[in-house]
Amino acid sequence: MNPTAAPLKQITLIGVGLIGGSFVLDLKRLGLAEKVVGIDLNRENLERALERRVVDEAFAEICEKSVGGADLVLVATPVSTLPAICRALKPFLKADALVSDVGSTKLSAIAAFREHLPEHLPNCIAAHPIAGSDRHGALAAQFGLFQGKKLVITPHGAEHSDGLARIEALWQAVGAQAFRLDAAEHDAVFAAVSHMPHLVAFAFVHEIFDHPDGQTYLKFAASGFRDFTRIASGHPAIWADICMANRDSLRGLIGGMRRQLDTLDGILDSGDKAALYRYFEEAKQTRDAWLKEQ
Amino acid sequence: MNPTAAPLKQITLIGVGLIGGSFVLDLKRLGLAEKVVGIDLNRENLERALERRVVDEAFAEICEKSVGGADLVLVATPVSTLPAICRALKPFLKADALVSDVGSTKLSAIAAFREHLPEHLPNCIAAHPIAGSDRHGALAAQFGLFQGKKLVITPHGAEHSDGLARIEALWQAVGAQAFRLDAAEHDAVFAAVSHMPHLVAFAFVHEIFDHPDGQTYLKFAASGFRDFTRIASGHPAIWADICMANRDSLRGLIGGMRRQLDTLDGILDSGDKAALYRYFEEAKQTRDAWLKEQ
Repeated sequence: MNPTAAPLKQITLIGVGLIGGSFVLDLKRLGLAEKVVGIDLNRENLERALERRVVDEAFAEICEKSVGGADLVLVATPVSTLPAICRALKPFLKADALVSDVGSTKLSAIAAFREHLPEHLPNCIAAHPIAGSDRHGALAAQFGLFQGKKLVITPHGAEHSDGLARIEALWQAVGAQAFRLDAAEHDAVFAAVSHMPHLVAFAFVHEIFDHPDGQTYLKFAASGFRDFTRIASGHPAIWADICMANRDSLRGLIGGMRRQLDTLDGILDSGDKAALYRYFEEAKQTRDAWLKEQ
Repeated sequence: MNPTAAPLKQITLIGVGLIGGSFVLDLKRLGLAEKVVGIDLNRENLERALERRVVDEAFAEICEKSVGGADLVLVATPVSTLPAICRALKPFLKADALVSDVGSTKLSAIAAFREHLPEHLPNCIAAHPIAGSDRHGALAAQFGLFQGKKLVITPHGAEHSDGLARIEALWQAVGAQAFRLDAAEHDAVFAAVSHMPHLVAFAFVHEIFDHPDGQTYLKFAASGFRDFTRIASGHPAIWADICMANRDSLRGLIGGMRRQLDTLDGILDSGDKAALYRYFEEAKQTRDAWLKEQ
């Protein structure tokens, strides 16, 4: 049976922003969801979401009315909020309701499901769509955001396979290419290619912020600086949350980055330009080969 | 007198690439240069430059025929080559010929002028147009590259003011906004906003290159990684040259970056999310304020 065949009667979306909002916009357009209920702490954001028809009904809290009818509860809030949200959901979930998330760290998501929704665990699916942006909020929601993007599901092993396939199929329906990874591997991968670049970009801008001549320096910053630091304009709360949730992987990468800087410092100290050339060349080839695959 | 009033009869461009090629294309279009002679070690590049009319005549070496008639010799090669080029130019320069460069490090440029063209020093102008790109070669030369870009002249103090004003006016004519900075200050500024981002981007990609799971990681790299590492696709020889020429400033910045990473490691270790939020917020505000000024 095609898991997307029967539309969901109700999706309850907790956190009506770029990721969750864009997902439900596409699902409704495709006829895969009949009604979307939005829950958000920010009333103004909820009003925008209603105006733009991202959601059909809006609530400020998790309650029987907002959650009781949901076939799928999608949690699209900062990752640190998932435990409290799971606890709050527990009394209101229908027995067969699916619960899924979109967070950037998956060990923490699975831990939250296990601890706070243990009886419901077979219906809890940990997922991560790869479609970041420095835009956020209901106004950032857009059709087609996930077209050609990747979706990673990290099974915890206790899922009903129907539920897992259903979530996967919904993301595929909105255009994403689905992958499955072990949660620990997922967190290591995204620490390396996403969380660490953010951390380093924030660190680099902070070095200029801390420098007495930083404001003079910035007068002459150009396109290299602009692209290199784009992700330092990301939402500080979201990124503090992600980095803290994935801190073990990140601390390992910070150690690696320190060693790279030590290597470079040694090369600069020795004046060995051929070694510096080889180092840069290896990095360039790695990056160019990656780019060719995109 | 308007220093751009009389067109230059001949510019000799040494290194026919993105920067020098784009500059002379605009100067000829504006009627500010009558003839451009190109010198380049790469014969194929010279042929492209002739075909595209970036240069009118092409030579593979510095000699009486290529340099003797020049009113302006513009050196647009990797910064480490300037000393040898100055030595080679010396026997062929007309007494009143201007010599200028486009290099990203200016203490090294002034040292080369002082050491290898001492009698000609009043006609040597150290300049740096801020218009990087990861494209290079004569085929990358384009009209309008410098429109709205910055040009920094770093006076050594022995210039004839006419020559300095003339060079400045030529860059302004092609659309650049001209600044003057002390050479040491220039090198500190560009270490911070350009050379260090390149070094860190190379270092970050090198960390993935060195990691046993690096290739798996790259499969999931997305837009954040793409922009953060764009400058790691820069030309390794050019960047090894620049970083080595500016290594004192860079080593100071590497020390600063190590301290930022230590701070972040400490915050992650302590689990103090509020401190991480403040750190990210300070960086974001710095970057957003900069972006608003662009």
